[in-house]
Order: sequence, then C-alpha cells, then structure tokens
Amino acid sequence: MKEDFMLSCPLPKSDAERVQLAHGGGGRLMQNLIESVFVRQFENPHLIQRHDSAVFEAPPGRLALTTDSYVVKPLFFPGGDIGSLAVNGTINDLAMAGARPLHLSAAFILEEGFLLSDLHQVVESMHRAAQAARVTIVTGDTKVVDKGKGDGLFINTTGVGVLEHGLTIAPSSVQVGDAILVSGDLGRHGIAVMAAREGLDFETTIQSDCAPLAEPISALLNAGIEIHCLRDLTRGGLASALNEIASASLAKIYVEECQIPVEEEVQAACEILGFDPLYVANEGRFVAFVPERLKEKTLSLLREFPICRNASSIGYVADLKGSVVLLKNRIGTERIMDMLSGEQLPRIC
Amino acid sequence: MKEDFMLSCPLPKSDAERVQLAHGGGGRLMQNLIESVFVRQFENPHLIQRHDSAVFEAPPGRLALTTDSYVVKPLFFPGGDIGSLAVNGTINDLAMAGARPLHLSAAFILEEGFLLSDLHQVVESMHRAAQAARVTIVTGDTKVVDKGKGDGLFINTTGVGVLEHGLTIAPSSVQVGDAILVSGDLGRHGIAVMAAREGLDFETTIQSDCAPLAEPISALLNAGIEIHCLRDLTRGGLASALNEIASASLAKIYVEECQIPVEEEVQAACEILGFDPLYVANEGRFVAFVPERLKEKTLSLLREFPICRNASSIGYVADLKGSVVLLKNRIGTERIMDMLSGEQLPRIC
Repeated sequence: MKEDFMLSCPLPKSDAERVQLAHGGGGRLMQNLIESVFVRQFENPHLIQRHDSAVFEAPPGRLALTTDSYVVKPLFFPGGDIGSLAVNGTINDLAMAGARPLHLSAAFILEEGFLLSDLHQVVESMHRAAQAARVTIVTGDTKVVDKGKGDGLFINTTGVGVLEHGLTIAPSSVQVGDAILVSGDLGRHGIAVMAAREGLDFETTIQSDCAPLAEPISALLNAGIEIHCLRDLTRGGLASALNEIASASLAKIYVEECQIPVEEEVQAACEILGFDPLYVANEGRFVAFVPERLKEKTLSLLREFPICRNASSIGYVADLKGSVVLLKNRIGTERIMDMLSGEQLPRIC
Repeated sequence: MKEDFMLSCPLPKSDAERVQLAHGGGGRLMQNLIESVFVRQFENPHLIQRHDSAVFEAPPGRLALTTDSYVVKPLFFPGGDIGSLAVNGTINDLAMAGARPLHLSAAFILEEGFLLSDLHQVVESMHRAAQAARVTIVTGDTKVVDKGKGDGLFINTTGVGVLEHGLTIAPSSVQVGDAILVSGDLGRHGIAVMAAREGLDFETTIQSDCAPLAEPISALLNAGIEIHCLRDLTRGGLASALNEIASASLAKIYVEECQIPVEEEVQAACEILGFDPLYVANEGRFVAFVPERLKEKTLSLLREFPICRNASSIGYVADLKGSVVLLKNRIGTERIMDMLSGEQLPRIC
C-alpha cells in the first residue's frame, strides 16, 4: 500500500534541482546559473563579454524600442510556452512599428523553488524562437524572489529594431477609406492557454497561434505596400486593438462579423466557456490598415506565409471624426464593438 | 475601546484605490491606468503616440543595450525607492559601458491589491530620476498577477545609450599596471534597505547611495581619460565586481583594505549585522580601471561631483595570468577576496 502510494507520486526534487534565493545574489551561484543556462543557450559574442551592457553597431535608419513582461499561466501550453511567447511577442511589437527586429534583452524573475529543468526548457525555447526570427539575445538579468512572492517565472524581453523604410506606421497615419485586414483566424492563443490552465479537454487540442510576424510584415514593406497602421491582437483581442486605433486616430471603423475568420473548434470552445472570440488574445495575428487599392495585393502577399494563410479583409475606415468601432453582425444589424472594461482572461501573456 | 482600536488602525482602502486584475487585461481599465499614471507622469511625444513601440532617431555611434528587473524589498527605503532605483540602476549599467543614456523602457508587474497611491509615488519618483539624468521613458508595459503571486510591484527597465568615443570599456581592455579606483564610500544601499526591511534603528539613518553615474563618467570621457574598464558595485558589492572583472580579464588584482572608503556608521552597522561592507550592494558607486599615469587626474575629475567626493585609489592590476583578487588588510597580511557563493542580502535591488 505504502509502496503503491509512493510509486504514484512524482519523486520529490532536491534543492540542487531548484532555484535558490542565492541564485539571485550576485555571487558564484548566480554566475554558475548564468553560464550553465543562459550563456550556454543564447551563446553569442555579446554575452560572452560578460558585461552589463551589450554594445552593437546600429544599422542606418530609425530605431524602435519595445518592452513586454510575460506572466502567462500556465508556463507551458499547446503550441508554445512562456519562452517562445516572450521572444515572439516582443518581436511582433517591433514588427508592428514596421521595424526589423535586431536584438533582445531577457530578464528573469524566478521564484525560489522553481525547477531548474523547467528553466532550461523555457530558455531552450527562447533560443529556438530567437534563431527562427534571426534576432540575438544580447543581454540579460536574473532576480530571485522568496517562495510565495512570485509565481515560478516571469520574463521581460525588450527589443530593438531598425526601420528600413520611410513610412510612419502608426494610428496617426490611418486614412479615410483604408481597408482593414486581419492576418488569420482569431482566438487560438487565449483558448489554448485557458484550456491548459483549467485542464479542459476539447475534441481536438487547440494550439496557440504564437508565432513571429516580422517576416510577413517585411514582405509587405519590400513589395512597397504603403502600410498605414499595424497592431498585433494580443490582450483584449481584435476588439481592443481596433478600439485603441480608433481612439488614437479618431477613426470611425466598420467591421463585418461574417468576414472575421474564427475556426469552428475555437468558436465552439468560446461558446462553452462564454467568451467572445473577438476579445480573446492571439499571439500570431495582426490587423493592417492599408489603402483600399492595395487590399488584394496585400492579402495575396500575406497568404504566401503559412501563419497568414487565412488573411482576410474585414472592414474599412469610414471617417476620421468618430473614434468608434461598428460591427455589422451576421443578420445585418449594427452594434458598437466596445472595449471591455476589464478582461475575459487574466494572465494570458 | 473599540473606537481606540479603530483609530489606531489604518483605514481600509477600497477596491477603487487598489490594483485589480482587470487593470492588466488590455481593456478600458488598463487604458485608464496607463493614461492617468504612466502617460501623465512620463509625458513625452513617444508615449502620446500610444503605439506598442517607440520609434526614435539614433545619434551616430555604437549603441549599448542593458536590462534589469527590480524586486527590492521594501519598495521604499531611506534615500530612494524602487522607482529611483529602477531608473538609476539601468542608467548606471549604460554608463559602465561608457554610453550616454538616451531612452528607457519601463515594464510593471503589479500584484492585485497593490495600492494605487504607492504606484503613483513610485512612478513620480521614476519621472524625477529620469528628468535628472536627462533620459526619456519612451515605452512601457503593465501586467497584473493575482494576489499572492507577486509581491506588490516588480519593475523592469531596459536602457539604450550611445557611445560617443572610440574606447572599448570592458574587462578585455584591462592592462597590467592599471590603477583601480572606487568612486565613493561603500555599503550604504545594502544597509539602508536592510535596516528598512528589518525595522532596525541605528543612531543616524543610513541613506542609500542610489544615484545616476552617467555624468561623472561622461566628464572622464570628455577629458580624454582612457578608461579601460568600469563596473557599478551592485549585488555582491566591490568584491563580486572585482572578481567578475578578474575572471573575465584573467587579471591578478591587488587591493588595500585601508584605502577602501567605508563610513563609520556603515562599518558599525555591518559589524552589528554580521556583514562585510566589501560584499554589500551599492547603487551609486563604481570601480574604474585606468592607466596608472591618469590616476590622479581621474580622481580629481571625479571628486568634483558630490556623489564621487570620496573617490579613492584602492589597488592595481599586477598581471594578466591570475584571475584572482588579493586583499592586503590593515595589519599587512594578504588574503584572497573571493566571490561569495550566494549572497548576504536577498532582494536588495
């Protein structure tokens, strides 16, 4: 009986396999952690210098700077983990400014007792994501907080990118008549994380759409598409992104619900859970505002990338004195697609 | 009796005065928080654009990138708070690469229930520190974690600076014969935070040395001082900084204990608490490795800044095949000043 019980329990991990407070203390244990986990995975000439700052030559052009902390719960979910999310999320924020991502910093807040094997796995995942997007993780930081004062692992990544074009890609460039495109089907990331968190089983496993978006944006820019505005559809989903742009540009935006791609399995999961897919977070989707005449060309360029194969035109900018998003639903009636006050899903990224 | 009890208790704060999970959800509450706290304090053209990335023209020169997360406990301490620390700490990492700090990002991880008035105070303190150091906080991020999964407030700042000189300021530039200078007296920050955390009362209140160091470094560079290496003396103090440099440059370093400035009150507090001031964290102190012939000029340039008025020469580089730090103590005997395995003081920055 006792043996059965012991067999069914995971073996307790020793202190040596867990993060200790001393790993954050600036002493030898911290140096060992940095060498054995971070420098080994992210190996590059900047990190090997072991200086607090990374120094690099910036290519000519304007630069973009963006930061995000990642507190997603759970750390591992179908289609990704906090590591791939932390790299792709920040790369995507750079891409949304029309910047080519160059370098990332990575800062870790570890909770005492966190499994070093999980840290290894996350760091490996960051390394793979960075390689895939051809960015370098050039500098970092490690802090440890006492048990019960964190939640395993929080990661901050901050990215620097270069703008190699003359456009101002921002809400202030939105124009009357702009076509509004969405780069793919919505709601995967939020539902994947929520299902993993709550231990929900759907008929098929919904995978997060977590992916880097710099390449499709770069393809549009290289083809001379005059992009007016871009935004990735993270926390708060499509509805929040459009409302933010409407509010910053004073645009009156019309969107047709039947044009917005949502996969059946995601729609079904949303109905079960009581979520609206238009408000659910994505991590590999964006909206683009482009001149109407470039709509079809933009769509066909985007659809060449697997991550954007469901790219669709979903609406247009009616005027610049509205600051409102109007949704025409499937039966033809119109309603305001407002910003939520709070959120549907906490700690989704 | 009941009234007395109530008078002696702080009034409970309503939910409206505290951070809610929904403040991190990407919806209207988050927008309100961003507008009313962050944009209002940090006001600048980058933040007003309300785009995920800040776009800026980089001045000519190499760039430096550095990141730090701040988890100091308590958040407020004599001589500073997590806000001034988060700005000055990252500015100092840039300065240690010989970079002039330009822009910072600021990312906040808030625990549900954190007092908004405390957040206001911290953000105001960041704003003042940024203004004093002439850097702009150009982009940011806000996340909220559930109660019990954080510790009030963690801040990440990441900084970009520009190198306006041709030097390589790094351990790899350390040379035999280099003089080693320390910019001021040691141990204030660690003792100030520790005393605040533990509620200790010393005869005088020891203030943190938290301060920006970019100006004195810039003065050295402008005067043509050929700086070989710089490092700020944060976690692990002087001993860890020297050991890191010795290990990265293979230097054999000699340091004289009687030359290292430690104020009497700090020394006394260290003795009571059982700390060695050479290992205690500072947030406004650095070591500089410069050619011996420039030692006196460097010291006199540094001493013109109040924050560096106690700058002293403490040792020299004996050879480049040692990777060791040797301390000659007050009675003339020599010992290895090793790196600590863990740390004396957790969560000091």
